Amino acid sequence: MKELELIHWIAERAPSAAGLATGIGDDCAVLDCPGGGCVVVTTDMLLEGTHFSADDLPEDVGYKAVAVSISDVAAMGCRSLHAFLAVGLPAVADSALARGLFDGAVAAANRFGVSLAGGDTTRSPGGLSICSTLVGAPPEGRTPILRSGARPGQALAVTGDLGGSLSGHHLRFVPRQTEALQLVEEYAVGGMIDLSDGLSSDAWHLARMSGVRLRLFADRIPISPRASAADPLGAALNDGEDFELLFTVASEECARLSGAGLAGTPITIIGEVLAGTPGVTLVDSSGRETDLKAGGYEHFSR
Amino acid sequence: MKELELIHWIAERAPSAAGLATGIGDDCAVLDCPGGGCVVVTTDMLLEGTHFSADDLPEDVGYKAVAVSISDVAAMGCRSLHAFLAVGLPAVADSALARGLFDGAVAAANRFGVSLAGGDTTRSPGGLSICSTLVGAPPEGRTPILRSGARPGQALAVTGDLGGSLSGHHLRFVPRQTEALQLVEEYAVGGMIDLSDGLSSDAWHLARMSGVRLRLFADRIPISPRASAADPLGAALNDGEDFELLFTVASEECARLSGAGLAGTPITIIGEVLAGTPGVTLVDSSGRETDLKAGGYEHFSR
Repeated sequence: MKELELIHWIAERAPSAAGLATGIGDDCAVLDCPGGGCVVVTTDMLLEGTHFSADDLPEDVGYKAVAVSISDVAAMGCRSLHAFLAVGLPAVADSALARGLFDGAVAAANRFGVSLAGGDTTRSPGGLSICSTLVGAPPEGRTPILRSGARPGQALAVTGDLGGSLSGHHLRFVPRQTEALQLVEEYAVGGMIDLSDGLSSDAWHLARMSGVRLRLFADRIPISPRASAADPLGAALNDGEDFELLFTVASEECARLSGAGLAGTPITIIGEVLAGTPGVTLVDSSGRETDLKAGGYEHFSR
Repeated sequence: MKELELIHWIAERAPSAAGLATGIGDDCAVLDCPGGGCVVVTTDMLLEGTHFSADDLPEDVGYKAVAVSISDVAAMGCRSLHAFLAVGLPAVADSALARGLFDGAVAAANRFGVSLAGGDTTRSPGGLSICSTLVGAPPEGRTPILRSGARPGQALAVTGDLGGSLSGHHLRFVPRQTEALQLVEEYAVGGMIDLSDGLSSDAWHLARMSGVRLRLFADRIPISPRASAADPLGAALNDGEDFELLFTVASEECARLSGAGLAGTPITIIGEVLAGTPGVTLVDSSGRETDLKAGGYEHFSR
């Protein structure tokens, strides 16, 4: 069972309850608050051997654990407020590992004014495992941006550049919270997602949740200098863990947005939103169109 | 570094932020909501080989993951609303494991009207790992009950009976949410904690957080028929994972409370709250007093 099939299977069976405005399937869940307004919540599990290696610095691993969840909150157009960190420490670990891990987590939290509100510490019979949970909220008077918000006629845009993250960037990236908050204050945003699985997969998620077709122009995709020289476009489409934001905006705002950028980060218009069968079309430099499959990193292969 | 030292080390360094009413050190964090009111949040990591074995049924493990967090929310006098489940599935696992796990989690959620609002699925290079996060809220017009609320003159009470949980009860216990909600509606509660580490440790947490001395009468402690026949009192004090509630109430309410119980669950008055050096005094059947050390299960031994 592949990860997507499993999530679909779970989502169909997951019980709902009063106050759950948006459940499984977006970057965060949206929960109505008792006194009005809402919070968004996301949780991410990072495991040694899957998301980081035993050789990575504990500070980098702790930083990444919090940063990936801040990125999810940013993808909702929200500000992260409170972090929770549950950690399984290997029995053989010395206290320097635990301290390094929390120093890294605190560095990420401090950078974005997030509290470390709670957590859990336990002993792991295997490798290091970390689960971070972030609680955030939209700016006052606004509602969260969903994956389902892309509409035909909008333009498709991305922050920063893509590909080659696994050479080290995936541990020390800066989640795009500042960019996201400026975006929702100053532009008419449609749908948004953060690029964790890779552009091809995450564009597909956005298309499917919005019921639209996304048309991507291959020669507009901003490719990172870190991306593999052998296949830079493949790296930008499939490497994953870029933690940039992919979003749609009113097409008349493209020039202003790509000209000004967001909080010092370049913004590239890479495509457009069309009506039609949900999915992603890739247009190559000769104008040839192919149906782009979700080919980003899949955690499961069976 | 022992678990308590590590938590203390973290708590001293954890950044705070606006809206964090109660942070590290209680059963849940208390977060102020944008529109007023608050939510409580708890996160718990369960690892194969530490909290369950590879031979345990996946349904039982999934149930336990959600139930332990519902128990933490209940210990705040709050109702659980939304659950998040992050799961690391062994590479060798078949889909029956994933399905069984979620069936068990959904069973716990359904029993208490909790939504499954989100989560994360990933591949584990080692054993199964699960992190559950629960969001809850106090009944309307009430505030969460804290570990720091015990006051001299109050009585110390416990739900159910204690000891021997590891013979199987620790996987299929019923978190005391119904009892907790009746308690806060009908009685003047002081401080509360759930018994996860064991009565001796958790009483010590309650005493320390409230700055009081708890005086426990050994022959009043309700011992489970599951507890070891060789040392039933030791089992009740140290086994852990009972997931009962330990709380203090106004002493004039003892007779009514122990007579009526809570939601069909027996309540036993096992001691009293005194001023003095924070800690726990155990009074044996001959009236001899000893200072009770936190001797419950410690995840760390170094």
